[in-house]
Order: sequence, then C-alpha cells, then structure tokens
Amino acid sequence: MERGNRVSITVIRRLPKYYRYLTELLNKGVTRISSQELSNMTGFTASQIRQDLNNFGGFGQQGYGYNVEDLRNQLGKILGLDKIYKTVIAGAGNLGQAIANYKGFEDAGFQVLSLFDRNPRVIGLRIRDVEVRDVELMEDFIKENGVEIGIITVPKYSAQEVADIFVRGGIKGIWNFAPADIKVPDEIIVENVHLNESLFALSYFLNNRQDYVRRD
Amino acid sequence: MERGNRVSITVIRRLPKYYRYLTELLNKGVTRISSQELSNMTGFTASQIRQDLNNFGGFGQQGYGYNVEDLRNQLGKILGLDKIYKTVIAGAGNLGQAIANYKGFEDAGFQVLSLFDRNPRVIGLRIRDVEVRDVELMEDFIKENGVEIGIITVPKYSAQEVADIFVRGGIKGIWNFAPADIKVPDEIIVENVHLNESLFALSYFLNNRQDYVRRD
Repeated sequence: MERGNRVSITVIRRLPKYYRYLTELLNKGVTRISSQELSNMTGFTASQIRQDLNNFGGFGQQGYGYNVEDLRNQLGKILGLDKIYKTVIAGAGNLGQAIANYKGFEDAGFQVLSLFDRNPRVIGLRIRDVEVRDVELMEDFIKENGVEIGIITVPKYSAQEVADIFVRGGIKGIWNFAPADIKVPDEIIVENVHLNESLFALSYFLNNRQDYVRRD
Repeated sequence: MERGNRVSITVIRRLPKYYRYLTELLNKGVTRISSQELSNMTGFTASQIRQDLNNFGGFGQQGYGYNVEDLRNQLGKILGLDKIYKTVIAGAGNLGQAIANYKGFEDAGFQVLSLFDRNPRVIGLRIRDVEVRDVELMEDFIKENGVEIGIITVPKYSAQEVADIFVRGGIKGIWNFAPADIKVPDEIIVENVHLNESLFALSYFLNNRQDYVRRD
C-alpha cells in the first residue's frame, strides 16, 4: 500500500480506538460491520472512518462493509501489535505495580522485564513474576536486555533523571505517567499520559451537561 | 458570553491541555502569550487555538495575545475547577491507591473521601488519610456524603456492579479505569481512561517514526 505521505496525528490517535472496538466486536462473534455501524459505536462520522482507514489502504468493500477480523488484524499490524516489546518500569510504587500487574498489556505484547526503584524497602520484591531492582542497575539492564520501551511512574521531580538513564541505555520509546515534561533527543518517541486532562474533561461535562456526548 | 450552541467534543477535549500549558507558563512567571506561541507549545495551529477559545468568549487581544493568568483562570472556571468535588474510589488495589495518593488531584479540587474494596485484607487500611471501607457500605456512604464522582479501579468483571452501586447512590460522574464498557443512565457523565490506546499509539510511532510529532 502507498504510504508516501505522513498520516496526520489525529488519524493515528483514532486507530487504537478502532482497534479496541473491533476487538470487542470480534469477541462478540461479529464478522462484518459497516462504516455506519462503526460510526454509531465510536461517535466518529462514517465518512471520517472511511477516510481514516483509506489512509492505510482501505479494507472495506462497497455494500459489504468491513470484515471485522481482517480489519482488526490489519490495524493491529499497523499499530505494531504483531510484535513483542521489552519494557521496564521506573518506579515500583502503586502506579508502577498496577502496570506490572495488568495482564492486558502483556497480552498485547508488552513484556515487563523488570521494575526499578531506589527505595530499599521495595527492591527485591516481586510483582507477579517481575523483580524490583535497584535503579542503579537500570542502565546496564536496559543495554544487556535490549529493552525498547521505558515506563516512567516515578514522581515528577525524578522523571527527567529516569528519562536520561533510559536514553543512555538506548531505549527507543518512553511511556511517561509523571506530570512533567521530559526532555529527550528527537528520535525518542515519548507518549505522555495526562490523567489530569481526563479528569478535567469529566468536571467540564458535570458543569456543562448540554455538551456531553457519551463515548467509550 | 453567548453559549447557545453545543461546543464540539474535540474542542472540549483540548481545553484541559490549554489549561495545563497555561498553568506551566504561569508557574514560570510568563504573563502573556500569543496564539502563535501557544501553537508552538501545543502543536495545534494558531487559528485553531483562536477558534477554540472564541467558543468561550475569546479572551485574546489583537496585538497583545492572551493574558496567561486571566486565560488560565477563565479556562479553569469553564472546566469547573473553581469547585470542590467529593469523590470515592471503588477498588483499593494498586491503581486505586495510586490515585488516592496523588496529591495533584486533590490540589485541583477532587477530594477522595473513601476507598472501597471487598477484600478483607485491605478494608480498614488508610491511604494517606483516606480509609478503605467495605464495598457493602459504599451506596450509603455516597448518599450520606453527597459524593458526586465515583472512580472505578476494580477489575473488568466487577466494573458494572460498581457502576450500578454508584448510580443507586446518586453519583453524577464516573471516572472509569476498568477496560470495560459500563452501562449507566444517560444523565450520568462517564469518562473512560483507556491506557491501552495510549500504549498502542506509542507502538505505532515506534514502527512509523516518519509520522511522529513530539507533543506533550
């Protein structure tokens, strides 16, 4: 398929949502779906959905719609979910442990090889089968194991220090939960999770119900 | 200000981001900013930013730009952040504890009055100053305390049960971290956090670096 142009960031941000809905449909035994039905589920317009998917070759057929399993698998490939990723988590507090405990990430191909912390009380603990190691060992661990993704769950004031270690270790992508802007070289992919933004959207809608549209 | 029409959902979703950037600017002592500078920070176009803010009355001045503190405070009001919200967390596992521990939410006006769990080993624990209570007491607690926001951090299979209790208790908004579609009456505001979608965007960019644009 032709991929000469950059795909817009807003289209890309919608792909994981399509993937999630298609996975749910597949689990319910649905075999095909129209862009209109996808529109009803996602709240995006049918024409937007067709346009979005056209960016990646367009898997629909006029009058038939989309084959759920095919489309889901193709989107999975596009999202890179046909691969296994080695990850580490910096910060073995509640949030780090919650992520290490969440089987959904592992099922999607994201393996947590180790957690790291500087607190002697948690070093040596095991979260499921994953050991908490001293953060002093993190850079070498990343290098030795070819870790690609680093997850930051340390407090704000330690986030940059952790990011620097990730970069020295050769990590390619960072999933950052710390409410801090981290500075890393341009070639490193950074995905920030801003939970505040989600909570503030909730409070907006509580105060402006007329603007609320249910979405999943 | 005139608010006859619904504001589009995509505009609303950008407001918390503007608010975050403006808070950072304020903390850095910046007093005024142009839509172009905001564009450089956020990645949205300057005209999009002006349009977005015009929805709410338009606080900018030609040739001057925006007063950072004014705009931040007005956006804060629009987002409902000038109020205090009573919240409870259903699920006192790692994620629930992480949220209860995160001072940033409290600072923004979201008070956690109690966590709830069904596990006897965590009932009675205190997370910071917040007690973990038996989930059997949750409905009455919500009613007696006029709790407005319920936070779901239980596993997927318990999410609907918890949502039903929230609704019976009279909760107005739900912040849902469980990877499950919960069904509640239309007047309840539901904000879902889909961490998978963020992680899958990261894996997309790791495999399609040409599409990556750094954003915060």
